[in-house]
Amino acid sequence: MSEPEKSEDIPEESAGKEKGSPNGGNPAKSEEDFNLAAIYVSDAQYNRNIYFDTSPQAVRLYMRYNHWIPKVLLYFFILVDLSLALFEDPAIFPLPIWATMLVELLCLLVFTLRLGHYAQVIPRDKFWKDPKNICIIVILLLTLVDMIIYGALKATNCYGVRWSRVLRPLLLVNVTEGRQLRRAFRSIRNALPQIFYVFLLFMFSLLIFSLMALKLLGKRGLKTIDGSPYFTNYLQILFDLYVLVTTANSPDVMMPAYNNSYVFAIFFILYILINTYIFMSVFLAVVYNNYKKYLKEEVRQLVRAKRHKMVQAFGVLQEQREGGGEPVVTHHNWNQLIRLVQPDIRNAHRELLWSVADDNNQGKVAFVQMADLLNIEVITLKSRPHPLHGLCPALYLSAPSRLLCRLVQHRAFVIVYDLIILVNAVFIGLDEENPLIANSEWAFLALYLLEILLKLYVFEPRAFFSRHSFWNWFDTIIVVSALLATIVNSAVIYVCLSVVAGNYTSRQILDIVFILRVLRLIRVVDSIKRFRTIINTLIRIGPAILTFGQLIIVVYYIFAMVGMELFKGKVKFYAEDSSDPEKAFCGNPLLNGSDFAQLNYCKNNFNNVVSSFVLLLELTVVNQCSGFATVTHASARLFFIVFHIMVVIVIINIFVAFVLEAFFVEYSVEKSDLQTSLERKIEELELCLICKVRGPGAQRGGGSGDLKRGLEVTEQTK
Amino acid sequence: MSEPEKSEDIPEESAGKEKGSPNGGNPAKSEEDFNLAAIYVSDAQYNRNIYFDTSPQAVRLYMRYNHWIPKVLLYFFILVDLSLALFEDPAIFPLPIWATMLVELLCLLVFTLRLGHYAQVIPRDKFWKDPKNICIIVILLLTLVDMIIYGALKATNCYGVRWSRVLRPLLLVNVTEGRQLRRAFRSIRNALPQIFYVFLLFMFSLLIFSLMALKLLGKRGLKTIDGSPYFTNYLQILFDLYVLVTTANSPDVMMPAYNNSYVFAIFFILYILINTYIFMSVFLAVVYNNYKKYLKEEVRQLVRAKRHKMVQAFGVLQEQREGGGEPVVTHHNWNQLIRLVQPDIRNAHRELLWSVADDNNQGKVAFVQMADLLNIEVITLKSRPHPLHGLCPALYLSAPSRLLCRLVQHRAFVIVYDLIILVNAVFIGLDEENPLIANSEWAFLALYLLEILLKLYVFEPRAFFSRHSFWNWFDTIIVVSALLATIVNSAVIYVCLSVVAGNYTSRQILDIVFILRVLRLIRVVDSIKRFRTIINTLIRIGPAILTFGQLIIVVYYIFAMVGMELFKGKVKFYAEDSSDPEKAFCGNPLLNGSDFAQLNYCKNNFNNVVSSFVLLLELTVVNQCSGFATVTHASARLFFIVFHIMVVIVIINIFVAFVLEAFFVEYSVEKSDLQTSLERKIEELELCLICKVRGPGAQRGGGSGDLKRGLEVTEQTK
Repeated sequence: MSEPEKSEDIPEESAGKEKGSPNGGNPAKSEEDFNLAAIYVSDAQYNRNIYFDTSPQAVRLYMRYNHWIPKVLLYFFILVDLSLALFEDPAIFPLPIWATMLVELLCLLVFTLRLGHYAQVIPRDKFWKDPKNICIIVILLLTLVDMIIYGALKATNCYGVRWSRVLRPLLLVNVTEGRQLRRAFRSIRNALPQIFYVFLLFMFSLLIFSLMALKLLGKRGLKTIDGSPYFTNYLQILFDLYVLVTTANSPDVMMPAYNNSYVFAIFFILYILINTYIFMSVFLAVVYNNYKKYLKEEVRQLVRAKRHKMVQAFGVLQEQREGGGEPVVTHHNWNQLIRLVQPDIRNAHRELLWSVADDNNQGKVAFVQMADLLNIEVITLKSRPHPLHGLCPALYLSAPSRLLCRLVQHRAFVIVYDLIILVNAVFIGLDEENPLIANSEWAFLALYLLEILLKLYVFEPRAFFSRHSFWNWFDTIIVVSALLATIVNSAVIYVCLSVVAGNYTSRQILDIVFILRVLRLIRVVDSIKRFRTIINTLIRIGPAILTFGQLIIVVYYIFAMVGMELFKGKVKFYAEDSSDPEKAFCGNPLLNGSDFAQLNYCKNNFNNVVSSFVLLLELTVVNQCSGFATVTHASARLFFIVFHIMVVIVIINIFVAFVLEAFFVEYSVEKSDLQTSLERKIEELELCLICKVRGPGAQRGGGSGDLKRGLEVTEQTK
Repeated sequence: MSEPEKSEDIPEESAGKEKGSPNGGNPAKSEEDFNLAAIYVSDAQYNRNIYFDTSPQAVRLYMRYNHWIPKVLLYFFILVDLSLALFEDPAIFPLPIWATMLVELLCLLVFTLRLGHYAQVIPRDKFWKDPKNICIIVILLLTLVDMIIYGALKATNCYGVRWSRVLRPLLLVNVTEGRQLRRAFRSIRNALPQIFYVFLLFMFSLLIFSLMALKLLGKRGLKTIDGSPYFTNYLQILFDLYVLVTTANSPDVMMPAYNNSYVFAIFFILYILINTYIFMSVFLAVVYNNYKKYLKEEVRQLVRAKRHKMVQAFGVLQEQREGGGEPVVTHHNWNQLIRLVQPDIRNAHRELLWSVADDNNQGKVAFVQMADLLNIEVITLKSRPHPLHGLCPALYLSAPSRLLCRLVQHRAFVIVYDLIILVNAVFIGLDEENPLIANSEWAFLALYLLEILLKLYVFEPRAFFSRHSFWNWFDTIIVVSALLATIVNSAVIYVCLSVVAGNYTSRQILDIVFILRVLRLIRVVDSIKRFRTIINTLIRIGPAILTFGQLIIVVYYIFAMVGMELFKGKVKFYAEDSSDPEKAFCGNPLLNGSDFAQLNYCKNNFNNVVSSFVLLLELTVVNQCSGFATVTHASARLFFIVFHIMVVIVIINIFVAFVLEAFFVEYSVEKSDLQTSLERKIEELELCLICKVRGPGAQRGGGSGDLKRGLEVTEQTK
């Protein structure tokens, strides 16, 4: 009956299941059946792709494996493992080696346990075929070997390098939950061949331009600003022109030639046009094109896998109808399944889903849609009366109260508060040491609190604080925390004044107060309709940006580890008030008189993991690394070029491609079929609901978040 | 019969034509009819959209208007008018005012004559309704007024500003031939509202971040690198953070805060993430989206207008068939029309077109396609025997000669020459003062010449130098000019040696020799197949890049004129060997000790139009303008911010969008229907042709160049 689907890529374990439910007599489904079906549904819902063992024991283990507690613990220990870099040499907070080693061993133990758990859940042969498991095992073994070698070297006072630290971020990629991160890496890997050919061409252009620069400018005896010969060394030219692509040394590299003659400007203009503008655009085009192509392929696979899982779930729960015909899942079984999959679902919502699913009356076809239906969040808010209405109807329905409600709901109310925000912005800009200004803050806080209270009086509180009222939550949190911080700040000032009679104010609290005050101003954006689509798109791509954040962290971490081994201690930072004479050249005589020292870049170093990360971020924006080549060797530039190619040309372009795609989809948004059928149902049933139907975009994130998109429909029927 | 088309937007003049050709009796078409039809066809072919008068006299005038000589003259005088900036104060080559004024008057006269000609061609009411004519008249009048005022002021030794110079580049936009440039401006204008809303949001984010920076960092008493207070002035912060978006002051602006505490790095990281990465991507997305949307609309209009013109041409030449039915254009008339439209067309090509058009046998429908068919270039090269084969068949067909042909056509031949090029690259990189190296150049030149001669021996010369054999032309031109330049160079050295016995070499000739030598290396790219698609796309977008070049020149010219009035003479450049003490601060004491003077940026000034253009280009790449704010006033920064918004956010993004679109289309290329029908026909007819079918991409350029695309099919049938 379900042959066409099964013939696709059905694994062997489902065959074993079939005989568990013989087709005659429709026996009552056991708890195990429900567990198995629920797991299939939730795997489909969250796009998990794990071929677990279907024996009751393995299913129970698998349910435990998917529980949130071990997942959170795993991520906590990954975080601990990664942040060990803060405490290991070169450290911000130095700890003895045995302490960090002990913690790392603990982390390794946790990872091993988790992997062991996973090995119990899925069939043995699947486990050993999966590259991510092999990867984790290799990482764990290598780390162990490295720790032993390092410990031995340190015990004998030899020099040792903790090279396995580079492998740590790879755990983030290879754990079962790193699905989106793996997808991002896959999309990079798939784009690589095409990027590579453009890159070769780009390198060829760079080589040709460098050769021309050498021939044209090398023999003219020109000098750079620091007196060294200009464009006489081929490798130096190559590097300078590569940096020009990043625009880091934009006018400087051209100035000596340009000062010599206007004609040489043409050379640089052509170079910038071809390499900076055209080639960089071609990189973006190639990355974007591949991103889109593989995104489609990935989504197609995801949809197929999801369908397949739902068919399996149906196969477990199906029952033969009395009159023959297609097998179905009964309403009772359906309810029980939904309750297992989503325990916190409301009855009204569940009935709505059933009526949508049952409407088509096609048994399996409707059932298969369930995973998607569950992902569409329907916020069922009965337009129940305001609690005050229930408590004291006479007062709440009196004329002044009604007038107040009308006032608050009027457009003018929003405008008045927007004006208040603008006035507040001016006040914030003024000097806060003026007592008038300082006290005005209390007035503004009172006004904002009043606004929130008024809105709570008018609107039903649970509607006001529903899960997707982003701005209401934003407002309330910002105002309440500003109130608390201002009170604490005043208290601190008062206490300090009375105790030491000084004018000490706790800088940290004041900073928080300031930030909260300024953040409050952002609210004004929400009341301008034109901005709302842009802002909503930005909020929607938020979760996916987190995936990119992980990607960036993995790459940064690896480069930070390598950079720290290469450059640690080469450049030292002296505090502002230090009087050390070495401060003038960052503690390295090689930097004496260099730009690096003169521009006070000493804190841009690889001396610990935090400053490494900040430096790598700076390099992402503008790739300027002359200082490090000075203190080590010209070949150190290779590190910076490789970093630029990896991060700017590949990852940043994928990020830009992602933002572009999100906005293109935003401009051509269409409701998915499922969502419309849900909405139609809501209308048909004339349910007394305020429905907010939202796509699963936010949950999927990463690759597929932009496929089926959010839309907000606020339907209010009598 | 042609009602559906005429009802669309047919102008009144065609109605007058109808009665000229009464429908009975099919009288022979007059020369005027052919002229009119030919003009409609060529208007359709080149996408001209001019509603000219259809009286025989106006048609003749219109034909003269479209002749290439007046067009070239017009562009020549526009060029002269624009390049007057070189001779006017502040000038590179100063000329007396009367001389430049006289030339400008001449230019104005030419423009007036051309406009007068145009006014004779099109109906009076159309002329006055067209904004571009009004625009030209206003520009001419304003220029005249300005010249009179300026002349009068100069005669009385008063200070005068030639403000009308700003208007000059607008002529380039408003002349009839500036169609593509107008299209580009229209696409910018259409994108502006959407860009504006994103820009407002971006400005809002900038204001919020600046306010936060002021509150967080203003009171800490931090100092910038030159000792001035850090982040204490709101406007200064705003400007600094705006410049950070352009990444020009990337680590510098953050260093004082970062040196104070690691925590402040978070502020800058958030700022860069939101404003530099996300907002700039959103700008690109908005620009790209609008570009694509309006491109589609423009192309639709173009196609409609083209169809309409062809229907009109058909209306002029149609004849009733004997047996009644649809009117047709006879083969004889068709031939005469084609000969008028494209006098240089080959007979074989014309017959091919007729057989394609006649094949469908639908009269008008087939006729309407003609404009597109004409745009598809079919290079008909009969595979005629080699001239030597004709001259001396015994020798050309002898065994050694055949062996040679096979050798040259073998893949190894290409590989050998690629290796020679690589060896040559190494030799170029070596020191050319070594006599061995210098003489090796002759060997390489001989080898390259030999290659060309061998190829000419093997391949038919006309096929070798066909119009689209880009690389053959490239090779030959480069090698021959290198040969000439090397000979001239040697001669110069020889003459100089014998005359003055010095070691003077003409630097200019040597430079050209070097450039030609390096350019020769590019050829290696063509033999790698993977690169060819990328290179071909780049070559194909070449003409469109010229449109962008014009766009950029219009905007740069306006900014250069304004900049020269604002900043001329504020910064002076002293030659390298000058011993003037003012050289250290670019001749302006205000710059004493500033970065601007220390980095030797003195030549980045607005003292003449060439250095203004170079400076504006530098500002496009990296917007760094602190020097000019120092020598004038902080408000001078407005000039640079406006420039950045106009050029980088709008124009460069459109350029990137254009390159992206070109590559996306490249990756999903499909043959257009017309091209395939042409190819099928070629196959059917088994014509003994080497056909190269190419799309009209290169000719259309600008907006529509990427709609119907080139493909190369080399068909050789017996």
